[in-house]
Amino acid sequence: MTVESFPDLYRLISGFRAEDQAAMAACAAREPKLTKPAGSLGRLEEITLHLCSWQGRHPPRLERLQACVFAGNHGVAALGVSAFPAAVTEQMVLNFQHGGAAINQLCRTFGLDLSVDDIELDRPTADFTKGPAMSEAECLEAFNIGFDSVEEDGDLVILGEMGIGNTTSAAALCLALFGGEAEDWTGRGTGVGGDQLKKKIEAVRQGRAANPTEDPLMILAALGGRELAAIAGAVTSARLKRIPVILDGYVCTAAAAVLHAVRKDALDHCLIGHVSAEPGHRRLLDKLGKRPLLDLDMRLGEGSGAAAAIGLVKAAVACHLGMATFGEAGVSNKAH
Amino acid sequence: MTVESFPDLYRLISGFRAEDQAAMAACAAREPKLTKPAGSLGRLEEITLHLCSWQGRHPPRLERLQACVFAGNHGVAALGVSAFPAAVTEQMVLNFQHGGAAINQLCRTFGLDLSVDDIELDRPTADFTKGPAMSEAECLEAFNIGFDSVEEDGDLVILGEMGIGNTTSAAALCLALFGGEAEDWTGRGTGVGGDQLKKKIEAVRQGRAANPTEDPLMILAALGGRELAAIAGAVTSARLKRIPVILDGYVCTAAAAVLHAVRKDALDHCLIGHVSAEPGHRRLLDKLGKRPLLDLDMRLGEGSGAAAAIGLVKAAVACHLGMATFGEAGVSNKAH
Repeated sequence: MTVESFPDLYRLISGFRAEDQAAMAACAAREPKLTKPAGSLGRLEEITLHLCSWQGRHPPRLERLQACVFAGNHGVAALGVSAFPAAVTEQMVLNFQHGGAAINQLCRTFGLDLSVDDIELDRPTADFTKGPAMSEAECLEAFNIGFDSVEEDGDLVILGEMGIGNTTSAAALCLALFGGEAEDWTGRGTGVGGDQLKKKIEAVRQGRAANPTEDPLMILAALGGRELAAIAGAVTSARLKRIPVILDGYVCTAAAAVLHAVRKDALDHCLIGHVSAEPGHRRLLDKLGKRPLLDLDMRLGEGSGAAAAIGLVKAAVACHLGMATFGEAGVSNKAH
Repeated sequence: MTVESFPDLYRLISGFRAEDQAAMAACAAREPKLTKPAGSLGRLEEITLHLCSWQGRHPPRLERLQACVFAGNHGVAALGVSAFPAAVTEQMVLNFQHGGAAINQLCRTFGLDLSVDDIELDRPTADFTKGPAMSEAECLEAFNIGFDSVEEDGDLVILGEMGIGNTTSAAALCLALFGGEAEDWTGRGTGVGGDQLKKKIEAVRQGRAANPTEDPLMILAALGGRELAAIAGAVTSARLKRIPVILDGYVCTAAAAVLHAVRKDALDHCLIGHVSAEPGHRRLLDKLGKRPLLDLDMRLGEGSGAAAAIGLVKAAVACHLGMATFGEAGVSNKAH
């Protein structure tokens, strides 16, 4: 499918369906029969219910797990907002392709199929402190790449990104979507501090000043990047294909937050894998009303925090499907 | 090995060795070479370092993973402190043996070998509100069972328990070890509330009043239970066998805390799998200076919260061993 204009995309988002009530009811009916005190698996029970709700299926299935990682380059990187040179984006894409990055090891550990889309790395977005990073057409081109990367009939997709300069983009997006001050949303990223951090904060402030639109998709084009637009595309695609999503860290969640600004329930099919050490992420999750699964001081991106949570998803489903009921096991349940 | 008296056990604990400096140094030397910003895998890096430190080996190994679950019955259960009847302890042991409990599914998911020791279920400990739950000999018998259950040459062991009434025992242990009020340490356990919770708090208070000793091992005998003594034995055994441990929730950590009261570094080889929904656990972890890996509102016991963290351990080791270095991947590292 190809989305050809922002009005088309608004129509697509307005057609999002809600969770599957029948699958939720079937899940909720089995859970209290299992041999444990009611609710004692805590958020593992929530994960199972989430999968049922958004796969529209009980029992939930965990056979086809996909990790989609998108890479893009940012004009704003030329301002020196990152600890690493922009060339690292492409070097890391090669590292993904050769299996040497963290996300490769995590995908191997948890049985995820990794796809990496590098989107016009030799054509960075424009410097958003001077005007929009992307045109509507450029933004939609990247959005459509993300949309198409999510395979039909998957059971779960995790999303990630790589792009030197993209925590600056995430901060500018959040400032535009949620207000506040540039400082509130800007962190150390890959490791900047001192004057470089001040420069980064200033770039975020100028980026918003140069792009004062209130339209969520215009904000994505103006302050996002190709990999962020692709993530928004993948989140949209997964919703339409009934595939639950696990979002990664700050950049990934900021990209998805554009959809939340369009409609408040647009991210209901998304879990948050982890809260990043980047302070804007925690603030952003509060705005979205989302609680992360993990809190491990990670700040790598690549989908690594979402992938790290897959063990919990497997654990949740294994318990829900494999545990004996009170009746089967001959265990007393005072509540029944 | 058989520990025959508390003085013997104090001598054993006083012989605990520290972490392996050479293995730590080798781990710390590799980590910054991997293709990621320094420190960006957060606590996953800590997990790897922990394994190296306490296995005394770099690279760390994750081949033999053991889950030891201990079950015991408690005299105090007759006071009605639990939502479930005491018969459930034995019923759940059968459920473990038949593969129907949560811990069975988690062990299958993460490749842990499960051993279950039910310790004299037909002989509950004495009601500790009237005097010591166990004699020194009974306590050591259970301690030795726990000690022997940890296999030589393991790479990691997780510990768990089952025993109707044992959050009452954990609360009484913590009150004796750390002070405060009975209310501070007593929670809803498997689901008690109202008058039953008041009765539970009163049992904890009376238990401490009836057993005013300040000697940590006497506290274990007086207010613990057979499965708690076994956990203390397994923690001791793992330390001597150079096997890192992951502790589970409130009961498991309370049992281990007895060793911490003997010497402050006695639990340095232990990670905490999760913080339980039982409020005393968070308070206890603060006292121990330990930060849990997961915070998922779980409150099941059985080792389930420790097992749920194994995905993170596997992820950590996979990244440390499998990632390319900056040099291998041809990625720029501004820091070098």
